[in-house]
Amino acid sequence: MSQTPLLLALDLTGTFAFALNGALTAVRAVRLDIVGVVTLGMMTALGGGIIRDTLIDSLPPATFTDPLYLGVAAAGALVAFFLSVPLERFTGLINVFDAIGLGVFCVTGAGKALALGLGEVQAVLLGALTAVGGGTLRDVVIRRVPSVLTSDLYAVPALVGAALTVAAVRLEIYGPVTALAAAAVCFAIRMVGVRYNLGVPAAPGRTDEERRRDDGRHTDG
Amino acid sequence: MSQTPLLLALDLTGTFAFALNGALTAVRAVRLDIVGVVTLGMMTALGGGIIRDTLIDSLPPATFTDPLYLGVAAAGALVAFFLSVPLERFTGLINVFDAIGLGVFCVTGAGKALALGLGEVQAVLLGALTAVGGGTLRDVVIRRVPSVLTSDLYAVPALVGAALTVAAVRLEIYGPVTALAAAAVCFAIRMVGVRYNLGVPAAPGRTDEERRRDDGRHTDG
Amino acid sequence: MSQTPLLLALDLTGTFAFALNGALTAVRAVRLDIVGVVTLGMMTALGGGIIRDTLIDSLPPATFTDPLYLGVAAAGALVAFFLSVPLERFTGLINVFDAIGLGVFCVTGAGKALALGLGEVQAVLLGALTAVGGGTLRDVVIRRVPSVLTSDLYAVPALVGAALTVAAVRLEIYGPVTALAAAAVCFAIRMVGVRYNLGVPAAPGRTDEERRRDDGRHTDG
Repeated sequence: MSQTPLLLALDLTGTFAFALNGALTAVRAVRLDIVGVVTLGMMTALGGGIIRDTLIDSLPPATFTDPLYLGVAAAGALVAFFLSVPLERFTGLINVFDAIGLGVFCVTGAGKALALGLGEVQAVLLGALTAVGGGTLRDVVIRRVPSVLTSDLYAVPALVGAALTVAAVRLEIYGPVTALAAAAVCFAIRMVGVRYNLGVPAAPGRTDEERRRDDGRHTDG
Repeated sequence: MSQTPLLLALDLTGTFAFALNGALTAVRAVRLDIVGVVTLGMMTALGGGIIRDTLIDSLPPATFTDPLYLGVAAAGALVAFFLSVPLERFTGLINVFDAIGLGVFCVTGAGKALALGLGEVQAVLLGALTAVGGGTLRDVVIRRVPSVLTSDLYAVPALVGAALTVAAVRLEIYGPVTALAAAAVCFAIRMVGVRYNLGVPAAPGRTDEERRRDDGRHTDG
Repeated sequence: MSQTPLLLALDLTGTFAFALNGALTAVRAVRLDIVGVVTLGMMTALGGGIIRDTLIDSLPPATFTDPLYLGVAAAGALVAFFLSVPLERFTGLINVFDAIGLGVFCVTGAGKALALGLGEVQAVLLGALTAVGGGTLRDVVIRRVPSVLTSDLYAVPALVGAALTVAAVRLEIYGPVTALAAAAVCFAIRMVGVRYNLGVPAAPGRTDEERRRDDGRHTDG
């Protein structure tokens, strides 16, 4: 359990970043009142960890047993609410917060899964799930198709960061430095994806809409 | 465990009210067939309790171990389905059922969390989550932004009701009277919110859409 | 535990079918990139089992302890991604895969619930939940009203298949033949529903929209 303080520190960092992101998303995308903003912020911040702890049977989730999580999530959401005007000009900030949460949570999710005895493949997947879980909840409740499905490089950096974490643990070099490095790699890949709008290959098929359009064009000709 | 019969009675009341609400929502908002109406009614009725029991590691959820819950939820949904014509003129009824479920579930959720040894803050949050969980599931599956994000006074009364419950338990005055009083306070605040459309302060920032509109106006001038 | 190999074989079949369905849905309905397609495929394939294992307190879910599930789900999603062009002309195939998953999962869900000591009614409901869970997650994240609410005969065949499974177990005739028969009955009812677009009775009431339209017409007259 020597990694617990590290895990906690990272987890709280991710929680704060996702709370800022979720609350800013609420203000910018939907203009909710303070309760809605704080609710969306906390849902984004705590969702990934709740999914993680449920799946690895670590219930009740850390969120509910350690009040620090609740406090940090609420603080992040309130900060975003009250600073939404000065933060308005920094439109890219919302993606930065999202990428920080993504980077940190894939590391803590993978680390906690290994600590509870799950296998390597499972730990990688669970790390990625922890990272994308909160943002997916956020997108579903405000009716956006989740980033994990549509965004260039959202699930991929989370899987990479989780895989690096698992490798570090198995090589017995896991510690604050390697954990931060894994989080930084995930963060960097994500930000490159956001910045250059890089994609991954789309399926060769056509969507139903494209097929209808094409067929219509064909009949017209 | 002396409060178990009270908890069960309240829980079943909330289950019935939410089943009526979910099923009427299905009929009025989407016009589903009987299976869809009953499904949405039961999802609304049982969703909050399932989330609660998962988070406090009381699995399988009471829903699945005690058939009373399933029966009451199905009965409420069927009643709403068959009485949807006579109930049509009472448009406000749908909000009343929602507020009853909200009031009752924040009390039972907080009470059950304390009984399982969670802290005060956690119990208040879990009570509120239990109360808003079913309605949030309902709204997500029929593609509405959940009331908990948009509605005036939806999460707030749930938090108040849960806090009163926790206070009553800690002051050792928790019983049928105080439980009902806490539920009634939550119900009353919610209904005042619905009736007078009272809001809570919105974030001072502008949404992306407003910013685009304002910027467009600026360029035009 | 003599039924475990059977349960596993059926579960993997359903997992593969739902992965094909989810991935094809992603390609046709939203045209996601490979990560999005595989994510939606795996979510559809694994969602029902995760919900089932959470509710019966069999955590971590089989998905995470047995890497076969992950491998089969990923394989199904990748096959669908790369074969989306040749599969394009078989527009009905997507419903066939969905019906296979539905048929298989209602049997495995009900069987696993009974094996863990739940009652008959609970096992039937849990079987149906397992069957419709993955598709409901799929529909929610791509912003469709879930099939379980709107589709003719989606929940009904799942309930029938689960009920037949429970009956077979209680009559002590449960084995590969009866399990496949129960899955086949569910599959057949679902496909009849898809083919003939059969419905179940709608609620007698009017939706809010119809009421407004009717009232408008009335005032005009």
